[in-house]
Amino acid sequence: MPRSERIRHPALARKVVPADVAAAMIGPGATVGMSGFTGAGYPKEVPLALAQRIAAANASGARFKINVWTGASTAPELDGALAAADGIELRLPYQSDPVSREKINSGHMEYIDVHLSHVAQLVWEGFLGHLDVALIEVSGITADGQLIPSSSVGNNKTWVEQADSVILEVNSWQSADLEGMHDINYGTALPPNRRPIPLVRPGDRIGEPYLRCSPEKVVAVVETDAPDRNAGYSPPDETSRRIAGHLIEFLEHEVARGRLPAELLPVQSGVGNVANAALAELAQSRFENLTAFTEVIQDGMLSLLKTGTLSVASATAFSLSPDAVAEFNDNARDYRDRIVLRPQEISNHPELVRRLGVLAMNGVIEADIYGNVNSTHLMGSRIQNGIGGSGDFARNAYISFFVTPSTAKGGAISSIVPMVSHVDHTEHDVNVIVTEQGLADLRGLAPRRRARLLIDRCAHPDYRPLLEDYFDRALKGAFGQHTPHLLEEALSWHARYVRTGSMVPQR
Amino acid sequence: MPRSERIRHPALARKVVPADVAAAMIGPGATVGMSGFTGAGYPKEVPLALAQRIAAANASGARFKINVWTGASTAPELDGALAAADGIELRLPYQSDPVSREKINSGHMEYIDVHLSHVAQLVWEGFLGHLDVALIEVSGITADGQLIPSSSVGNNKTWVEQADSVILEVNSWQSADLEGMHDINYGTALPPNRRPIPLVRPGDRIGEPYLRCSPEKVVAVVETDAPDRNAGYSPPDETSRRIAGHLIEFLEHEVARGRLPAELLPVQSGVGNVANAALAELAQSRFENLTAFTEVIQDGMLSLLKTGTLSVASATAFSLSPDAVAEFNDNARDYRDRIVLRPQEISNHPELVRRLGVLAMNGVIEADIYGNVNSTHLMGSRIQNGIGGSGDFARNAYISFFVTPSTAKGGAISSIVPMVSHVDHTEHDVNVIVTEQGLADLRGLAPRRRARLLIDRCAHPDYRPLLEDYFDRALKGAFGQHTPHLLEEALSWHARYVRTGSMVPQR
Repeated sequence: MPRSERIRHPALARKVVPADVAAAMIGPGATVGMSGFTGAGYPKEVPLALAQRIAAANASGARFKINVWTGASTAPELDGALAAADGIELRLPYQSDPVSREKINSGHMEYIDVHLSHVAQLVWEGFLGHLDVALIEVSGITADGQLIPSSSVGNNKTWVEQADSVILEVNSWQSADLEGMHDINYGTALPPNRRPIPLVRPGDRIGEPYLRCSPEKVVAVVETDAPDRNAGYSPPDETSRRIAGHLIEFLEHEVARGRLPAELLPVQSGVGNVANAALAELAQSRFENLTAFTEVIQDGMLSLLKTGTLSVASATAFSLSPDAVAEFNDNARDYRDRIVLRPQEISNHPELVRRLGVLAMNGVIEADIYGNVNSTHLMGSRIQNGIGGSGDFARNAYISFFVTPSTAKGGAISSIVPMVSHVDHTEHDVNVIVTEQGLADLRGLAPRRRARLLIDRCAHPDYRPLLEDYFDRALKGAFGQHTPHLLEEALSWHARYVRTGSMVPQR
Repeated sequence: MPRSERIRHPALARKVVPADVAAAMIGPGATVGMSGFTGAGYPKEVPLALAQRIAAANASGARFKINVWTGASTAPELDGALAAADGIELRLPYQSDPVSREKINSGHMEYIDVHLSHVAQLVWEGFLGHLDVALIEVSGITADGQLIPSSSVGNNKTWVEQADSVILEVNSWQSADLEGMHDINYGTALPPNRRPIPLVRPGDRIGEPYLRCSPEKVVAVVETDAPDRNAGYSPPDETSRRIAGHLIEFLEHEVARGRLPAELLPVQSGVGNVANAALAELAQSRFENLTAFTEVIQDGMLSLLKTGTLSVASATAFSLSPDAVAEFNDNARDYRDRIVLRPQEISNHPELVRRLGVLAMNGVIEADIYGNVNSTHLMGSRIQNGIGGSGDFARNAYISFFVTPSTAKGGAISSIVPMVSHVDHTEHDVNVIVTEQGLADLRGLAPRRRARLLIDRCAHPDYRPLLEDYFDRALKGAFGQHTPHLLEEALSWHARYVRTGSMVPQR
């Protein structure tokens, strides 16, 4: 569809302006709700224009910062540019941009890391303050002024509803065949008026294909034609293949024991190379007629949809490599019957995750010997990305899996440690941990048994004796034997890494 | 109702035996699902008889241990007696018995601390292994063999369904007017067949008043006439009154700001003296027409029901003092229309807690300056009780409150510490922390702001300078400034307590 045909509503077509004109409508101190989820569907020109304006203002001694709320991570044109201009006061709820990360960890930007299913309701409830502007990428505008979402839905429904004014970016790079793929549920309400969410299968449609938006609220429309971030995935390596192998063996075992149906239960998979590789391996397995109820459709999942291993996928966004995007854009019409993109308060809703019995697979930074998981912090203090939806899925999952290579930084960091330096998923929420070394099924195990199993099955051989030594001494010297820890030593591996660049003790 | 009339089913009346005969049906290695939730509705005679048998066997050199699953905590006649006999191999999902606690912390008993809403489904899923015997207290048996629950429901529905055989204790001490107060939902299923739970108000009835039980499955019936544990509550002291005062002021403020309805939202309150005192203070407030969607009805809540401040309460159990029990038993018929007792997988269900928008108030052992909460472990290793339902409620709450006096052990322990020694509720799940010193509203605050507020508002003045000093130095020396920590020092307060008996540094 040519660019001009994307805006079918005449009054809104008359609001088209250059990006810098739209950016000028956002002032210092504004809180802006932007579209964007894992590098898909974020606005591509207005944030850049705004960053230039902010940089100029700040260079002249003014103080120009805004608060940025999104769906999840975006891209250099949004998070990167605004952070580089020192233009962000507060950022939420998830981000993965390297420039932003540096600003946050050097104390120059504030960041709140929120369960992705919680964000919309926190705003509806009025707990995060006032939203001034919604800045939303869409793939088109219907004749009656409704918005056709693009490659992510995220919190767009909420931003459009809650903001005083709306700026739209209409991106003609996005496939016109996205129209009809989205399912925007308008049945949400605040308590005491909430009702059951009527979704019982991952592919159920419980809403409308468009975002409602009063045309009067739209103050500017910007036309763009630019691709999503679309970072590539590393090809599966031996480590991720082995992790995937352990996972699949476990799933087959659970099916054989009658604890999972043959077509499994809806799969959720976090973003990242290991998760992507695990999905790729599923294509090689005997499983078929699978479904997905997840946050993000990455290459591995698209390929399962293509081959038919996966019959339907529910998510809130894509996160594809350039090759996969090309394939998707060529065949979006075919995929439309088997992909549903929803607002993130629905894609990640605890009610639905629990009801459907999702098999949740997420990455970790580290896990400790008792099964507590750190998904967010390096050495207790530096944020890496954020918790994302991992908590929404893990807490309510049928089985919660956490996957990671057993070491990082060429072996200088062990992913299995005596005590995690930050907790995102407690021992109460972690069922299975998988590394390339093996799989530890922690269900039904008291803490000391978890420790033995995790050390034996998941730790790297270089770290196993060190973990055994810690645990054995904790069995003698701890203040209590339910969760034996040596308080002076529990975080010493992290302290050693900060001091020496390695968790391995110096001789 | 006289004892004999409690068993209206003739075939089951013929199965009445003495407790020791019933206890003899439970062998070494058995897994037994027992009734009981916070000292209410647990079996009172068979566990004692079993403990005697086990003690005798163990004294003669045999090894006789069983696995005990319950609703939550029970009483000395169950947990205490079996633990004292060294008769428990594995205990789940929550307990608070001092003898058991000692066995667990000395490494002689295994204990798994589970979210209370998760237990039933873990058993249905087959993840915890086989259940041999259900040992359930009831207040009576109907003419067609259905079971009238007593003062708690807990996991009884699941134990009766899943166990190979059922032993009943029919307790004529329990009020006959409990009949009709319970609501047992049989609509649960495993995925992919789960459906929305049709509950939209705390008082909705979505099930049946009785537990279904095939009479053939019942192998023994024991008649008892013994009171529940019914420990008393401490009268509200100045500390708990001040905590309650801060809470009520906050709630009034939220109503005034339009962020809560005038009749609030359904209240959940943990067990314990502070929670009980907070409820007592609600009776003195301007609030009326309140509702409760909670785990346990303690004295404070019963008194709110009596005065009409509370119009209806949903729970899974009572936890009353002897005085309150007497009052309840005299007026059970009046309370029956305003109290609904449900299985704990429903009373604590994340779907319902989220839908209803519960105001969740739970105690803590300690919180750290970034808002992470430890509900279970003393000094990182010793289990105190367990997480109970606090995670079910806090994660899905409209607002999650955590309350505690600012110090313990006469000031030797600070409840606000640099880093908690165990995490049960992560920074993502904690909205408001309250001590007698004040209230910290953490909503919408990045970690460093939370730290300043928590230190200023909640820490005891004796510990405030020490926390400020830690935080100020972490702002200079930490590996990252998102969550500044000094790894060598983060747990030093706990280590100092273990070493010296106090968190206060020695001069």
